[in-house]
Amino acid sequence: MNSFGRNFRIQIFGESHGASVGIIIDGCPAGLSLSIEDFIMDLDRRRGAVVKGTTSRNEDDIPNITSGIFNGFTTGAPILIIFENKDVRSSDYEKVRDIPRPGHADFVAAIKAGGYQDFRGSGHYSGRLTVALVAAGVVAKKILLHTKDNSVLCQSSIIEAGGEKDIDRAIDKAITANDSIGGIVECKAVGLPIGLGEPFFDSMESLISHIVFSIPAIRGIEFGTGFNAARLFGSEHNDALQNEKGKNLSNHAGGITGGLTNGNDLVFRVAVKPTSSTPKAQESLNIKTGELENFSIKGRHDLCIALRVPVILESVTACVIADLLMQSGKLPVTINPKKNLQ
Amino acid sequence: MNSFGRNFRIQIFGESHGASVGIIIDGCPAGLSLSIEDFIMDLDRRRGAVVKGTTSRNEDDIPNITSGIFNGFTTGAPILIIFENKDVRSSDYEKVRDIPRPGHADFVAAIKAGGYQDFRGSGHYSGRLTVALVAAGVVAKKILLHTKDNSVLCQSSIIEAGGEKDIDRAIDKAITANDSIGGIVECKAVGLPIGLGEPFFDSMESLISHIVFSIPAIRGIEFGTGFNAARLFGSEHNDALQNEKGKNLSNHAGGITGGLTNGNDLVFRVAVKPTSSTPKAQESLNIKTGELENFSIKGRHDLCIALRVPVILESVTACVIADLLMQSGKLPVTINPKKNLQ
Amino acid sequence: MNSFGRNFRIQIFGESHGASVGIIIDGCPAGLSLSIEDFIMDLDRRRGAVVKGTTSRNEDDIPNITSGIFNGFTTGAPILIIFENKDVRSSDYEKVRDIPRPGHADFVAAIKAGGYQDFRGSGHYSGRLTVALVAAGVVAKKILLHTKDNSVLCQSSIIEAGGEKDIDRAIDKAITANDSIGGIVECKAVGLPIGLGEPFFDSMESLISHIVFSIPAIRGIEFGTGFNAARLFGSEHNDALQNEKGKNLSNHAGGITGGLTNGNDLVFRVAVKPTSSTPKAQESLNIKTGELENFSIKGRHDLCIALRVPVILESVTACVIADLLMQSGKLPVTINPKKNLQ
Amino acid sequence: MNSFGRNFRIQIFGESHGASVGIIIDGCPAGLSLSIEDFIMDLDRRRGAVVKGTTSRNEDDIPNITSGIFNGFTTGAPILIIFENKDVRSSDYEKVRDIPRPGHADFVAAIKAGGYQDFRGSGHYSGRLTVALVAAGVVAKKILLHTKDNSVLCQSSIIEAGGEKDIDRAIDKAITANDSIGGIVECKAVGLPIGLGEPFFDSMESLISHIVFSIPAIRGIEFGTGFNAARLFGSEHNDALQNEKGKNLSNHAGGITGGLTNGNDLVFRVAVKPTSSTPKAQESLNIKTGELENFSIKGRHDLCIALRVPVILESVTACVIADLLMQSGKLPVTINPKKNLQ
Repeated sequence: MNSFGRNFRIQIFGESHGASVGIIIDGCPAGLSLSIEDFIMDLDRRRGAVVKGTTSRNEDDIPNITSGIFNGFTTGAPILIIFENKDVRSSDYEKVRDIPRPGHADFVAAIKAGGYQDFRGSGHYSGRLTVALVAAGVVAKKILLHTKDNSVLCQSSIIEAGGEKDIDRAIDKAITANDSIGGIVECKAVGLPIGLGEPFFDSMESLISHIVFSIPAIRGIEFGTGFNAARLFGSEHNDALQNEKGKNLSNHAGGITGGLTNGNDLVFRVAVKPTSSTPKAQESLNIKTGELENFSIKGRHDLCIALRVPVILESVTACVIADLLMQSGKLPVTINPKKNLQ
Repeated sequence: MNSFGRNFRIQIFGESHGASVGIIIDGCPAGLSLSIEDFIMDLDRRRGAVVKGTTSRNEDDIPNITSGIFNGFTTGAPILIIFENKDVRSSDYEKVRDIPRPGHADFVAAIKAGGYQDFRGSGHYSGRLTVALVAAGVVAKKILLHTKDNSVLCQSSIIEAGGEKDIDRAIDKAITANDSIGGIVECKAVGLPIGLGEPFFDSMESLISHIVFSIPAIRGIEFGTGFNAARLFGSEHNDALQNEKGKNLSNHAGGITGGLTNGNDLVFRVAVKPTSSTPKAQESLNIKTGELENFSIKGRHDLCIALRVPVILESVTACVIADLLMQSGKLPVTINPKKNLQ
Repeated sequence: MNSFGRNFRIQIFGESHGASVGIIIDGCPAGLSLSIEDFIMDLDRRRGAVVKGTTSRNEDDIPNITSGIFNGFTTGAPILIIFENKDVRSSDYEKVRDIPRPGHADFVAAIKAGGYQDFRGSGHYSGRLTVALVAAGVVAKKILLHTKDNSVLCQSSIIEAGGEKDIDRAIDKAITANDSIGGIVECKAVGLPIGLGEPFFDSMESLISHIVFSIPAIRGIEFGTGFNAARLFGSEHNDALQNEKGKNLSNHAGGITGGLTNGNDLVFRVAVKPTSSTPKAQESLNIKTGELENFSIKGRHDLCIALRVPVILESVTACVIADLLMQSGKLPVTINPKKNLQ
Repeated sequence: MNSFGRNFRIQIFGESHGASVGIIIDGCPAGLSLSIEDFIMDLDRRRGAVVKGTTSRNEDDIPNITSGIFNGFTTGAPILIIFENKDVRSSDYEKVRDIPRPGHADFVAAIKAGGYQDFRGSGHYSGRLTVALVAAGVVAKKILLHTKDNSVLCQSSIIEAGGEKDIDRAIDKAITANDSIGGIVECKAVGLPIGLGEPFFDSMESLISHIVFSIPAIRGIEFGTGFNAARLFGSEHNDALQNEKGKNLSNHAGGITGGLTNGNDLVFRVAVKPTSSTPKAQESLNIKTGELENFSIKGRHDLCIALRVPVILESVTACVIADLLMQSGKLPVTINPKKNLQ
């Protein structure tokens, strides 16, 4: 359903062209300082408004924090963060299309909701909701700075687009082809203590992949050497222990052994499909006529949604790690508790 | 933790060289006929005792069903299935190794448990526990035959090992090299109704990947075209709707749109790493001496654990689908209820 | 934490004197018509603004439904309902009191949050949040009208206050004594199918009492004959079956046998403590001076909060029943699905 | 369903006359010493085999711990505890009765399971399963001894039976009347830190009552002054703070304020109904004939099941407290971790 996490728990809501999207963060420790400024950089990274290849939809994305914060600090109560949808042009989506857009949830969402779905801009299935994930990630990342022993850092970047390592060239290729492209995004977390992850079903890979596949357009995930591991010999793939702190001579396992963090950098990559809303003309079924038909998609869309994925990937990874740190007692229940409670 | 699922819920337990491993299935509908015979084929497939490249450990794997069944039918109460560990040679593992085995949980499990872990044969982190997943899968698969409208079927097979499509040749290569190999396993589910999966966080991919990554040795998962999708244009990747039943002209999305089943075959692949216990000599840290040391692993181990993965993959997939079917009201609460309750 | 329910799931947020309080309803079937008018009556009942013995705080309590509704019907996506706090006089609470109010969360909340709590009007611990429960109840009650076979109805009323059956007289007694009083509230649900409740831990009593004790000021709950059952002989207390539909000759069990609904009216009562904020002068510890001190409480408070409890009790009961009906397949997944999904 | 708890989680299974009953404890910290001897006293207390007024069914109740323990200590993996059912006389229950026993789950369980229920001795709905709760309680109580700062202790006793404070006399009255009786049981927990309980829905009262009502035969629960609180003035009921450690001048609230522990003893009472299986002749419906009929119940049954409840109450209370202590970081993740992990 629309919530995720055990002790650091997020609940998402909203629709692309509804009044708002947002998130509730339940289980955040008290005493974390939090202001709107904390959110700006990551929200800007996600919006990528100025980046070639991203949509011209221009939300200012100001987080409206309406509960769980008091005098600039978290109180331990649920934190509600709302983003109003302002730059909405629903006329582009004024009715369910006769031709459901390929790659979009239009058709399946209609079946699931028995015809009651909010069909404007994919409604609740829209990538617009990832702004809420980024907001949760901002809070989670700040928590990770308070990990006992050492801080945990999540970093992510796009490493390939449209089959090219040079991302600029990839975007140009897409513009020339008048078509959308996909990409590969890598994420790393450094500073993790050994032993995070809960056997049997809450392995580190299980939790990360669970939340990663809630991001629209993700088609695959691999940890460490990933799919290439299937082509190596055991003697090539095994990471030999180098020292007592868990450091390995290699990191083919991507920082995870037996489902638990092993003291090396956590590394994974995801495959992002090409934006479904390609500017190129396509053929699909006209539900009304029952005939295949040529059509093209209007509205504002990214040529390469993979460009927006890094900050989202950092965000969801930070949420998972924050949750596991709490379960492992490696985070303070209250951050910097006051001596005088009055 | 060690349970998974919302309405069809499994709880796993046991250790490789403890008294037993097993599973509790909570939320199974009443009225499902169930006998030990139902389990034989899939347990045999997993054991693969006669297959070249699998371990010589020879458990007879007889499921002991001690609750939740009455007169041959499920009652709706929790089903406890226990597999006794009989063919145990713990002497191979009589103490924590001074050299933690690369690729195994030895080192991280010791840290996590503060030295109290059952270190014999990886203890609770052992692949031995997958016998319990297969048992749960047997029950889940039988449930799927009672889906309203049409039955759902899960099928899986290994499609690549050690980089080879010819699996026999791959095993021979491993034997010759005296080394272990990995592989790629594909899984399909057919007959799924449209709309399974629960936005936002319980997409079909999210739930499947969550449970798939609880299987030891999985390094990656991809749906449909997967990582290749990242290299296609949108116009190439999009699946055009072909008819009102949701059938698409292609199936690059692997049967999932917007996180929901779309009426086409569900298709995904996983990467299985080469068995960590390779027969080849390796180098790793001797914790006691603090020196890197050459060593080789004893005990009975598969050259290619990927060979065992297909039936496990079917099993966990069936568990996820059974759970989602229940949530969607597409399974009867009781199977063939009796008219006369006395 | 701040969410409750398995398939019909609510997530609450907000503070008494913060920007707002509200609730997210996750798992509501699509196709339920919903408008602000639906909420008026129950919100008015809770506010009880005109009733003798309730506070003069005058919120207009207009539910702001900002997601999960489209064209007047639920879509199946999370429903966010926000109530803005307008009539706030925080000056009454401008700082943590030196004397924590007896019966209030002031002291324990400060300890729990390490001094970061929102101390204004009990913050997140305030009875103000029950407005959100009532909103969830409005949705749940509407769902219950769509139960297969027959509708389910929840009704609740105060049956005793300050030890008196005549409630008017009880309030007068409180006014005369210049003191607050408690009361007993009874709740009934009629039309329930047989077999609701999930053994072993989700008995009907377990789920109802869980959510009931989230309502501030509840000190006890009893089902059917309740505490008096402890004084009866078995032959007196047992309810004999009267007919094949489950109707019993008596209903000492309050409609529940073995944790499951038995086809008779569900009946339970709760004890509500006297309002902690009594107008009478009290003695308590001044934290700053370390001395016991006489003081009296300012602010606007009910003389008898039990008066507000009936509608809240109906609401939370309806939430539990809606959840169990869903799990039991006794509610449609979509209400009145459209034939033409376009 | 059949599991309860967030971080300290129990999963129950079994039937009265099946092969066994038992429990899995998931989330127990590693490093807790545990042996069969730890269980004897509490299991004896529950069995009460020598106490006047309890059943002559004589299970030796030896816990069979088959996983999660290694060399006498918990490992952090799920702990499976099984009790074999040996002293079973199913002939007493050889078929579903034509006359469902009043007060028992016979009728509702049949409806719920569509006729597939295990009807022998109430099957999964039997009080026999409370032996598993006691086993979980033994583990939970041992954990509570490791609470940071000070140990937590749970104690419970019967304070009234059949309306009498003198319990011996009450039993004699029941024997004379040839009828069963109920009782009131009180439970206390001392040594609790301030602030346990998680707003909004996981208040201390919510969690305790949730699990308490899973114990068969409980009809009511009240905290502190409980139902009597409804008859007091606020000035009488309020507990004034006495010192900075949270000690109050009175304890009408039973150690809980705002759903959180307040530093005073946690006190609650439950009402236990008279045993449904009274030896006295009763009238009920014969399902086959459709006529009301006189009958009497055979089998071995307690005259006063309330006598067994104290140890069960302690057990479930300890489970709740252990879970909350974990969430609050007030328990070590591993108990006495070893310095040398090899």
